[in-house]
This record gives sequence, C-alpha cells and structure tokens, in this order.
Amino acid sequence: MTVSHVSSDITVPQPSQSVQLTGVCDIPSQSSGFRFNHTMLRIKDPKRSLEFYTGVLGMTLLCVKRFEQMSFDLYFLAKLSEAERQNLPEGDDLAIYTFRQRGILELTHNYGTEDDEGFSYHSGNSEPKGFGHICFCVPDLSAAVAWFDAKGVAFQKRPEEGKMNNIAFIKDPDGYWIEIVQADLMAD
Amino acid sequence: MTVSHVSSDITVPQPSQSVQLTGVCDIPSQSSGFRFNHTMLRIKDPKRSLEFYTGVLGMTLLCVKRFEQMSFDLYFLAKLSEAERQNLPEGDDLAIYTFRQRGILELTHNYGTEDDEGFSYHSGNSEPKGFGHICFCVPDLSAAVAWFDAKGVAFQKRPEEGKMNNIAFIKDPDGYWIEIVQADLMAD
Repeated sequence: MTVSHVSSDITVPQPSQSVQLTGVCDIPSQSSGFRFNHTMLRIKDPKRSLEFYTGVLGMTLLCVKRFEQMSFDLYFLAKLSEAERQNLPEGDDLAIYTFRQRGILELTHNYGTEDDEGFSYHSGNSEPKGFGHICFCVPDLSAAVAWFDAKGVAFQKRPEEGKMNNIAFIKDPDGYWIEIVQADLMAD
Repeated sequence: MTVSHVSSDITVPQPSQSVQLTGVCDIPSQSSGFRFNHTMLRIKDPKRSLEFYTGVLGMTLLCVKRFEQMSFDLYFLAKLSEAERQNLPEGDDLAIYTFRQRGILELTHNYGTEDDEGFSYHSGNSEPKGFGHICFCVPDLSAAVAWFDAKGVAFQKRPEEGKMNNIAFIKDPDGYWIEIVQADLMAD
C-alpha cells in the first residue's frame, strides 16, 4: 500500500548537541530540503508598514503579489546582509529566491482597511491568544533601543522594565509585538 | 541633542533588483546586523507539538528555557540542513547560535493547558484576525503532500483545492496554518 510504503520512515538521528525530550523524534528523510520560509501577518496600511520594516528595521522588499480581483496584496520582505543585497537575483529568479530563504516576513493587505479609521488587527497577546511575536536579534541592544527611540517607535517593554533586562519588545504599526534580543546575552 | 544626532540617518540604498514602492525607505545604518530571528506561537501540549515539528517537519530542538516560577517553558526549534546539524555548537554557544539564526520557531507552553480538554489557542484566521500562518518551502510539493497524508496531518487546503494549485496549507496540532510551497513554482 502506498501509505504504509511512504510512512516506512527512514530517519536520521537528531544531533547530539540538540535537546532530547519526550516528543522529540528523529528526522524523517522525507523532510529533507524543507525550510522554514516565512511568517505572515495581516496589516492595515502597507505604506506605514513598509516605512517601518524598511526604514526602521532595515528590511528589503523582495516581492509583491497583487490579487486585485480578490482585493488583497502580499508583500514579502527580508532583512538581508550587505553581501546578500549585492548578489540578489532579478525578476522571476528573485521570486523563487524569496520562497527558498529563511526569515521572510509576508505582510497581507486587504484593500480598504487603511481608510477605515476604527479598523485594527489582533496582536494575539490579548484574548483570544495564539501567535505571540516575531523577534529580531541585534548586535547591540542599547544602540538598537536608542535608534527605536529616535524613530519614535512604541515599546511594549523596555529592557529595564520587568525581570528580563536583556530583552525588549517594540510594536509595529499594527501593534504586533517584536522582541529585540542581543544574541550573546541569551546564553542560559 | 542625542535624539536628533541618533536620527541623522546614514542610509544605504535598497538593491536595484528589489521592489520600490511608496513607503519603501533606504536602509538605515543603525539596522546593520539586525536579523529576523524567530516567530513565537503558544502551544497547548509540548509533546504533541515536538512530535509534529521534529517527526513530520524534521526540525531540531536547539534550546529550552524553563520559567517554572512563572509556569511556562519556551522551546526553540530550527529546520537545519545536514551540514548545519553536523556543525552545531554546544551548551551556551548553542543558545547564542539559536538567537543569531534566521527561521527559528519559538513555542510557548503555559503549564496545565495540555490537561484542559476544552482549551485551545486562536489560529488568527477567524475573528479577531491578525497573524495568518507560517510557511515551509519544500523541494517537491507532491512528495510533501504524500508524506503529510502518510503521517495523518490535517489539511486546511490541499493543492488541488481552490484556485492556487501550487500551494497547500496544513495544520499543526494547535490548528495554526502552515503553508507549503515549492519555491520554483512561485515565480510570477
């Protein structure tokens, strides 16, 4: 039978440095080449969101897909390194590149929400809860906080607030939480 | 004044291959080294989620942070390549590595939800909407669908359903949507 044939798992062990816990399985060969490509958030106003994600967080808009008959557009952004920016493919190759990367942010704009004064999206951090936040790591948390202050970014939690002084949370234009961490402060 | 000094932007232009639209800004030097590190989702039952994300999608559990006094744990996973698995750092270096990567998935478990039969999280795709989905790219969409069928994974949308036959949506154990795409089918 096809199903039992496909499910006769060929696995490779998890790396010895990784965490072994109840529930953790070996890696199925069928997942070879899978990649965690993107996270999608709905946004009210693309102009404001593009200003924030490019002009504050320094992302690059790689791809836009417009579905005018269904009244929505999709924006795909990445925070690229200088080397990546200098070697970006073009055209169709850029679209394929976009869907092969890790760490892509997809923003969905349903037409008209930007003109609806009372309209807002749900951040996931009040009831009903679910999604919590996205996170950017930064080389220097204090410098990043000064930069966000200079740009008038709203904070959900400044580093000095609460118990965890090595992390901050800012808010994007829709109120989604963005954690800010300095990786070398995150050892246990 | 500090604020105006910090905000005197030194920028680099967006790459010419990228999309220029109203709202897109040049890249501020202050964002140098920023990286889109992770996306956080709350989960009801860590055993079920770890089985799914490791045993079906082939991820690796890199780091667990336990906050017993606050009754929650955090699980950090990545879908690594074979070369990455063979070169993983250990211990504190692995925690720092985790917070420097792109494409990390953070799962938050608040104690007790796994034993609360009626408890569930909000996927973001019914009212109130916000977060939409995460996405994995795969080398072969048909083979991935056969694998998910063999593992009994629930589909939100099979490739042949709806208008877009080059994408599928599966559901994770909490009902969060996971888009599945084959990158080379995603050119415009």
